[in-house]
Amino acid sequence: MKICQVETTLVATSRVGQLGTLGLQVVRERGSTTKQVAVDPVGCRDGDWVIIVGSSAARTAAGSNDYPSDFTIVGIIDYWDDDSESGRK
Amino acid sequence: MKICQVETTLVATSRVGQLGTLGLQVVRERGSTTKQVAVDPVGCRDGDWVIIVGSSAARTAAGSNDYPSDFTIVGIIDYWDDDSESGRK
Amino acid sequence: MKICQVETTLVATSRVGQLGTLGLQVVRERGSTTKQVAVDPVGCRDGDWVIIVGSSAARTAAGSNDYPSDFTIVGIIDYWDDDSESGRK
Amino acid sequence: MKICQVETTLVATSRVGQLGTLGLQVVRERGSTTKQVAVDPVGCRDGDWVIIVGSSAARTAAGSNDYPSDFTIVGIIDYWDDDSESGRK
Amino acid sequence: MKICQVETTLVATSRVGQLGTLGLQVVRERGSTTKQVAVDPVGCRDGDWVIIVGSSAARTAAGSNDYPSDFTIVGIIDYWDDDSESGRK
Repeated sequence: MKICQVETTLVATSRVGQLGTLGLQVVRERGSTTKQVAVDPVGCRDGDWVIIVGSSAARTAAGSNDYPSDFTIVGIIDYWDDDSESGRK
Repeated sequence: MKICQVETTLVATSRVGQLGTLGLQVVRERGSTTKQVAVDPVGCRDGDWVIIVGSSAARTAAGSNDYPSDFTIVGIIDYWDDDSESGRK
Repeated sequence: MKICQVETTLVATSRVGQLGTLGLQVVRERGSTTKQVAVDPVGCRDGDWVIIVGSSAARTAAGSNDYPSDFTIVGIIDYWDDDSESGRK
Repeated sequence: MKICQVETTLVATSRVGQLGTLGLQVVRERGSTTKQVAVDPVGCRDGDWVIIVGSSAARTAAGSNDYPSDFTIVGIIDYWDDDSESGRK
Repeated sequence: MKICQVETTLVATSRVGQLGTLGLQVVRERGSTTKQVAVDPVGCRDGDWVIIVGSSAARTAAGSNDYPSDFTIVGIIDYWDDDSESGRK
């Protein structure tokens, strides 16, 4: 799974029906400048460091095998000190 | 999911039968020069900023588990200000 | 899906049984120097610009969910002018 | 599969229910500075060199097709001499 | 599929049960310095140039949908002249 930071909520009104009403977050992987979009069943706030699962597991993590996600937040990291590069609590 | 911009429609007459008649769009991920091809069940126009799902979820998002897509547009972003790097509405 | 150019046919006599007799093509993605191998159910010629599907959809596109492909050609692009970067017909 | 080194345990109290109680490890792929998170059904210690499976196989390797993992440790390498670049025992 | 060269056999005694007794090979993709681990149901020797399938197809290619592989050797290339960049026989 990837370690990413939540940046902001994304709004997309025109969407396929299967996306439903789960929140979408713009996230950025640690050490990368590329932004991606993740489905958020956990309820994150801007700035949170989160664990995001990809591949086919992202569907189940979003609540259903039919959910069209390839990137779903599965947990909020309790403590992430990015400078000292440790994830210990 | 990836954040991409639609560039143009792609025509491929010789194709496997399962591709059917859904539109194909040439898209470019934000910050990348690599072009990819996405299936478009939403109905995009050139220049639209869209959310694209990959992995196995791209099949369901295209309408069927048998649809041979690994990159399907699932939503059009309401507002994307690429310079200020925000996706808020 | 990726936009690749077909380079040449690949011969691999020692192979797992599930690969069967479908042709294998050495391909190169647009703008990359990395060569990959794609299964070809369409019938391409050297130099063709093609659309290639990856992920789990590559199995179905090769004709069966049991086919061991992660990269299958699904269409030949009618017209690809690589210099002007357009895929319009 | 990827060759990674275990760095430390990760704590994420707010998580989706399917993650259960399996341990999460922060790992770094050989030759990369990017950290990722892997599910650990084997029981690793900090500094171990491990084999990690991704894609949909990461779910089964974690014990169930419903487990939301895309990166699961499947083995500890007996001997890895990173300087001489060999993995022989 | 990827074009890789087999470097050496890998030994990992502590492993999840599903890995069974299939051989594991350290391989390197053509043009890359990153080493990966592939399951070998074909029987390769050090130095062989091979075709390796990833994604979910790697499970079937290893002999079972429950096999935890994301990178399985599916064929040995008959002739690979890396300098002239051709894969013809």
